[in-house]
Amino acid sequence: MRSARPPAWLRLPPGLRDWAPDDLARLRALEGRLRGAFEAWGYREVATPALEYLETWQRGTGAPPRALFVVVDRTGELLALRPEMTVPVARFVATRWPAAVARLYYVGPVFRGGEVVRGDGREFLQAGVERVGEGGPDADAEVVALAVDALRGAGVPEVRVGLGHAGFLRALLDAADLPDEERGPLAAALLRRDFVTVSARLATAPQEVRKALQDLPALRGPEALPRARRVGVGQDALDELEAVCDALQAYGVGHAVEVDVGIVRDFDYYTGVVFEAYAPAVGAPVLGGGRYDGLLARFGDPRPAVGFAVHAERALAACSGVEVASQVLEVYYDPEARPLALRWAQTARAAGVRVAAGPAPSPSPQGSGVWFRSDGPWWVQGGEARRLAPQELEALTRGGASWLS
Amino acid sequence: MRSARPPAWLRLPPGLRDWAPDDLARLRALEGRLRGAFEAWGYREVATPALEYLETWQRGTGAPPRALFVVVDRTGELLALRPEMTVPVARFVATRWPAAVARLYYVGPVFRGGEVVRGDGREFLQAGVERVGEGGPDADAEVVALAVDALRGAGVPEVRVGLGHAGFLRALLDAADLPDEERGPLAAALLRRDFVTVSARLATAPQEVRKALQDLPALRGPEALPRARRVGVGQDALDELEAVCDALQAYGVGHAVEVDVGIVRDFDYYTGVVFEAYAPAVGAPVLGGGRYDGLLARFGDPRPAVGFAVHAERALAACSGVEVASQVLEVYYDPEARPLALRWAQTARAAGVRVAAGPAPSPSPQGSGVWFRSDGPWWVQGGEARRLAPQELEALTRGGASWLS
Repeated sequence: MRSARPPAWLRLPPGLRDWAPDDLARLRALEGRLRGAFEAWGYREVATPALEYLETWQRGTGAPPRALFVVVDRTGELLALRPEMTVPVARFVATRWPAAVARLYYVGPVFRGGEVVRGDGREFLQAGVERVGEGGPDADAEVVALAVDALRGAGVPEVRVGLGHAGFLRALLDAADLPDEERGPLAAALLRRDFVTVSARLATAPQEVRKALQDLPALRGPEALPRARRVGVGQDALDELEAVCDALQAYGVGHAVEVDVGIVRDFDYYTGVVFEAYAPAVGAPVLGGGRYDGLLARFGDPRPAVGFAVHAERALAACSGVEVASQVLEVYYDPEARPLALRWAQTARAAGVRVAAGPAPSPSPQGSGVWFRSDGPWWVQGGEARRLAPQELEALTRGGASWLS
Repeated sequence: MRSARPPAWLRLPPGLRDWAPDDLARLRALEGRLRGAFEAWGYREVATPALEYLETWQRGTGAPPRALFVVVDRTGELLALRPEMTVPVARFVATRWPAAVARLYYVGPVFRGGEVVRGDGREFLQAGVERVGEGGPDADAEVVALAVDALRGAGVPEVRVGLGHAGFLRALLDAADLPDEERGPLAAALLRRDFVTVSARLATAPQEVRKALQDLPALRGPEALPRARRVGVGQDALDELEAVCDALQAYGVGHAVEVDVGIVRDFDYYTGVVFEAYAPAVGAPVLGGGRYDGLLARFGDPRPAVGFAVHAERALAACSGVEVASQVLEVYYDPEARPLALRWAQTARAAGVRVAAGPAPSPSPQGSGVWFRSDGPWWVQGGEARRLAPQELEALTRGGASWLS
């Protein structure tokens, strides 16, 4: 019964969440390590607004409005919250970045207005890179290698990357000779690995194409390339895929990468390699990306580009063992000791200790920490207090774990 | 003429902006220093979703819907983008933080759906703290002192804080004996310093109250407290204000703080001290805050609280001289030198150098950087190339400014 639910102002809408300090500290640590990797590889951060014109998203992603959070501006114009960051970065580059080449990264929340699926939130943090202005296997390989380096650096264990090519699937769909209106639903069925629908929609397709599309999930591993070649379509795509695999050897990450011709990505702008990264015990990709040589042209600036986005919450789930230090030293003071306590707190903060200072509760502090009384500093813990010697007080300003005892 | 404008997908809606790398690096540096101050004072970060139920905002801020970006969820429920962060943190604490005391901070964008005023954006970054669970002058003083410390630490020059009390204004309005429906418009007129409207709306108020309300802007500086006392209302508020001034002396920031009884804040939840921080050459406050002892009760958890929010873009405008290092070393390679170049790039990255590596353009790189050729590494700059000695190459991995020559 609705009346038994807490009122709306005590709840959050479905798929939206709070981050309490412990979890958030872990997320921020992961975010910081991703930023560190992106910057080490020469990428620079860019930011775009959370809201843009609905038309921008439709032009960029072709996303149906039901997957977007739509906002009616007070002027009556339709805006939407960003569902991803590649399109706005492409718009930014097309309108504001005249240099031929750009290595850019971003970190920020994205919003999906549709139903809550797979336990994913409708607002989640993405961190990713876009390398604009260079085609070819070297640029692809750099971005895949950076994906591996960044995830490993962030603490994600046993990172595995599956590498496919959007052109191979496109060639297969061409060979299936489907009416235009059938291609979208078929691609959507492939994306959700719904092979019953795939099979039904391919009823009129040539036998070998039907078999190849149904066998897509098995086209992975060391033998995937030669087996895909035997299908007889998309040879250019497979050549490109092979060249990227070769280039990856020079980055020393080849062993983390496996050809997976069956990868289907969820936006329609991919034109070349597509890839996803996985980690143990996380059921969905922690990272996805690919080459999108047609997207910038949609914004009037035809340039090749390749990039990826890390799904930060999934990546965080993969590093479940990582803890972040966030200990705070409590300082309590009696009224007459306030100036001394606050001066000491500032000294300790300047030395790198996190210090929370406040009046001592009456009759005595319940937590543990330093208690500045009129008769000097005391250490208080579990209701017991003992005097602190000057050298003990000084040791506390040097931080360390001694005061955790 | 509309047809002469660029299409929507090349524009941004009014009041929304992109951040290019140089400006964004400065903003992130400022953000990092604010975080550092908040954490040094024992505050821990919390995050809430950008979207909540419209009802939550109406309950918390009393904000009229026209000041909000409203989103119709696909279930038909009304959501809105957060216009500020104090209300969601209060909701978070009320529903998910059983401990009596909380020192929390947040960093994130907030959204104002109204008209673009004062050149402010409709999406801007706020970083702030909330100290929940303690009333009294010590908690107020801590938060004001942290405001000064955080802004100074972030590089904002000549920080000045004006300190007033919401209770004094409330007492004046009580004494003006206005009908309920007149109080809101009058407070709004005071907020925008529209003293013509103030005067008109006070036509029926007692003479001394009218004078006091009109003189509010002058009630600042060393003599403000005794002069405010002579008005004869709000003595409790002025007592509290005086106690906070006393407590601030113990923090050593008293000289940066000035009593300003005329401060009017833009949300209706303030109950105690209110304050704003200013910096030279920035026309609007870079920070604002105050005590809001009634807000958590609106979420079913009556607890006192005090906090502030930094308007990060205004604070950034105040630190106009601060530059952030973001030099990237370019590495170019010929095909046969790729493995060597990429290995070297990883060594340099591990040593802390930002390195962008890619195939050398034909016939030679145009920028400056290291060019790995089949005959070894060269330094290239302005179209000239010279061989790099092994010790020069090694010096580059140690970073420093030598390669900027």
